[in-house]
Amino acid sequence: MIYLDNAATSWPKPETVYQAVDHCLRYMAANPGRGSYTMAREAGRILYETREDLAGLFGVKNATDIAFAYNATDALNMALLGIIGSGDIVVTTAMEHNAVTRPLRYLESRGVKLRIVSCDSQGRLIMEEMRDAAKGAKAIVMTHASNVSGTIMPIAEVAKLAVRENCLMIVDASQTAGREEIQVDDMKIDMLAFSGHKGLFGPQGTAALYLREGLAVRPLRYGGTGSLSESDEQPVFMPDRMESGTPNTPGIAGLGAGIRFIRAVGQANLRKKELALVSALIKGLQEIPDIVVYGPRKVIDRTAVVSFTVRGLDSGEVAHRLDRDFGIACRSGLHCAPWAHRTLGTLETGTIRLSPGYFNTAAEITETIQAVESIARRGEKM
Amino acid sequence: MIYLDNAATSWPKPETVYQAVDHCLRYMAANPGRGSYTMAREAGRILYETREDLAGLFGVKNATDIAFAYNATDALNMALLGIIGSGDIVVTTAMEHNAVTRPLRYLESRGVKLRIVSCDSQGRLIMEEMRDAAKGAKAIVMTHASNVSGTIMPIAEVAKLAVRENCLMIVDASQTAGREEIQVDDMKIDMLAFSGHKGLFGPQGTAALYLREGLAVRPLRYGGTGSLSESDEQPVFMPDRMESGTPNTPGIAGLGAGIRFIRAVGQANLRKKELALVSALIKGLQEIPDIVVYGPRKVIDRTAVVSFTVRGLDSGEVAHRLDRDFGIACRSGLHCAPWAHRTLGTLETGTIRLSPGYFNTAAEITETIQAVESIARRGEKM
Repeated sequence: MIYLDNAATSWPKPETVYQAVDHCLRYMAANPGRGSYTMAREAGRILYETREDLAGLFGVKNATDIAFAYNATDALNMALLGIIGSGDIVVTTAMEHNAVTRPLRYLESRGVKLRIVSCDSQGRLIMEEMRDAAKGAKAIVMTHASNVSGTIMPIAEVAKLAVRENCLMIVDASQTAGREEIQVDDMKIDMLAFSGHKGLFGPQGTAALYLREGLAVRPLRYGGTGSLSESDEQPVFMPDRMESGTPNTPGIAGLGAGIRFIRAVGQANLRKKELALVSALIKGLQEIPDIVVYGPRKVIDRTAVVSFTVRGLDSGEVAHRLDRDFGIACRSGLHCAPWAHRTLGTLETGTIRLSPGYFNTAAEITETIQAVESIARRGEKM
Repeated sequence: MIYLDNAATSWPKPETVYQAVDHCLRYMAANPGRGSYTMAREAGRILYETREDLAGLFGVKNATDIAFAYNATDALNMALLGIIGSGDIVVTTAMEHNAVTRPLRYLESRGVKLRIVSCDSQGRLIMEEMRDAAKGAKAIVMTHASNVSGTIMPIAEVAKLAVRENCLMIVDASQTAGREEIQVDDMKIDMLAFSGHKGLFGPQGTAALYLREGLAVRPLRYGGTGSLSESDEQPVFMPDRMESGTPNTPGIAGLGAGIRFIRAVGQANLRKKELALVSALIKGLQEIPDIVVYGPRKVIDRTAVVSFTVRGLDSGEVAHRLDRDFGIACRSGLHCAPWAHRTLGTLETGTIRLSPGYFNTAAEITETIQAVESIARRGEKM
C-alpha cells in the first residue's frame, strides 16, 4: 500500500510512538494526578513532559498554558465556545474546515455576527478584505493551512493586524503543527489549536489548545481535575480549568515520542522532504492531460497536500480505482470543508487529495503519478 | 506492586487490549469514515464493532444511539449541558463525583435550579426525599455507584420514579459499567455515561454516552463528521451529531477487546471475583484496631471499592507508606467527590481507597491487610 492520506492522520508513526503507547499502557497507565503512588506519578510525568515538549515546539513560555484535548475539533470548540458570545463579531476565512465553520454557524445562531473573508482561486487570503473585516471584531479565527488545497495562510501578518485592531487571534494549526514554524509569543497568537495525530506523529485521540495567559475562557466541560477536590467549582488555573476527567495518557505518551522524533530529525528537514515529494507529485500530475491541480502554484506556499480532479471522471471513482487497482490510499470528496471547495470552484466535483508524509518515498510518488495517468487515460475511453 | 486503584483506572488490562491498540496503531489507524480505501474502512469497522459491543452490553437496540467520548466527564457534559437549560429543575444526590457536581454548579450559575437529595452515612439514597425532589424536575442525574464508598444506588427504582414524574433519567455508570447489569431499555434510562478505561478494560481516552432515540440534545462540540461534508451545519443524526472530529480509533479498538474479554469471562464472574476480594478486604480491615471502614455493611450493596481511615493518622500519609514500604498502589484524599465525603463524614480527613480488580489475588489482599495493620500499629507509637 502507498499511504497518501497524511493530512487526515499520519501513518505510519515512528516506531518509538508505537513503543511509547504500549509501554505506557502496560506499565504506567495509572490515572495521572490522582494518586501519589509510583505509577501514578509516572503517568503524571508523561503529561508533564509532553506538555513541555509542546511548549518547546511552539515557543510557549509556560507549558501549563497548554491544555490537552480529545481532537483538534474539541480544542477549537474549547476556544470558540469558550470566549465568543452573543453580540460579538468574529472574522474567519473562506477556506476553513468544518471544525471551524460548524461551531461558528452554531454561534451565529446564538447572536454572533460572522464575517467571512474571501480567498482567491488558489485559496490565498484577500488581505485587504481581512483588514476591513477585522475592524471592531472580537476575534479572528482561521486555519494556518487549508486541508483541501494546502494553501498556507499569512497568520503572522493577520496576527499583527489583530494586535492593531485589539482582537483575538485564534489559529487552527491542524495541518501545520510539526512542519511550519509556529512561535505563539513572537507571532502574537492568542489561541492555537492543533491535532496530535497528523504532523506531530501522535496517535488519534490527542490534540491540544494553547491559551495565552490571562484569557478568560469558559471551560467546555466541567469535572474532576485531581485538584481542589474539596470544591464543587471548577478550578480557575490552567491547565486544570480546561482539563476535566481522565486524560488519554497512553496517547499523550505517544504524542511525546512523536515530538521527540520531530526534534531528532529536525522540523525543517521533515518539511523539506515532504515538499520535495509534493513538488514531484505536482509536476507529474500537471503533465497528464485532463488533470486539474488546485492550490498555490509555488510549492513553498503549500503544505504537503495536493488536490486535483480528472476532467470527465468522478473524484470518488478515481480514488476508488487508486485504492483497488494500485493500492494507493487517498481521500476524495469535500474533506469536511465546503467553504474551501466553493472558493476553489470544486463544490460540485470534490477533489482527489493526495497528502504525502515524511515516510513516503520518491518511488511511491512516481508510482502514484503513473497510476493517476493510467486511470485518466482509461477514463477517456469509458 | 499490588495495584488497588482500579476505581481510577483498571490495571493491568487483558493482553488482548494491549494487542488491539498496538495492532490498530500499526496497521489500521486511518481516519475512520473519512476515506474509502481499505485501511480507512478497517478503521471504520473498529468503531462499528465496538459500538455494537457496547450496545450488546447495555441492551441498546440501535448502536448508533451511542456516541464515543473523550472520557466519562466529557460524556456527562455532553448529556447535562446538552439538554438542561435556564429555568430547569435538576435533581441529583449527595454522593456525586465532581464530573456531575461541577457541570451542575456551572448550570446553576446559568439559572438552573438544583435539588440535592440526601444520602445516609453509608452513602445510601434517601428514597422518600428523592420522591419529593423529582416533582416538576426536568432531569434526575445520579451515579450508579459512589467512587468513594462503593455504594450502589437504586437506579432502576429511581428510573421508574422518573418515568412517573415525566423527567429524564441520566446515569453516570463510570464505576459500574462492565460489572453491574445495566439494560437501558428495560431500566428506562434516558442517558447513560460511562468511561471505557475502568470496568470495561479499555485504555484511557475512551468513554461513551448513550442517548435514548429522539432526545433533542445539543452537541457539546461542532465540527467535521465525515458526513454531509457539503454543509457547514452539524448533522442532526446520531452518532454524528455528537461525534465531531477524529475519534480515538486505537483506544476504541482496545475498548472493543476489553468488552470481548468481559463477554468471554462473564460479567457476573468478574463481579463475583471482585466481591470476594472486597469481602476479604473489609473483613481483614475491620479486625484492625483504629480502622474505620466506610460504605455499605453488606458487600453485595457495593462495587469493588473500600474506603477507610486510620484514627490518628493522615490518610495521605497512610497511602504514601503503603506505596513506599509495601508497593501497594491506592488513592487517598477526596477522590474528586466532596459531596460524598460530606455525606460520609470524611470531608476533613479524606479516606484511603482500595479498589481491587479482577486481576488481583487473594494473596495480595492478605498482604494489603497486613500492610495496613503494620502501618496502623506503628502509627500508634508515633
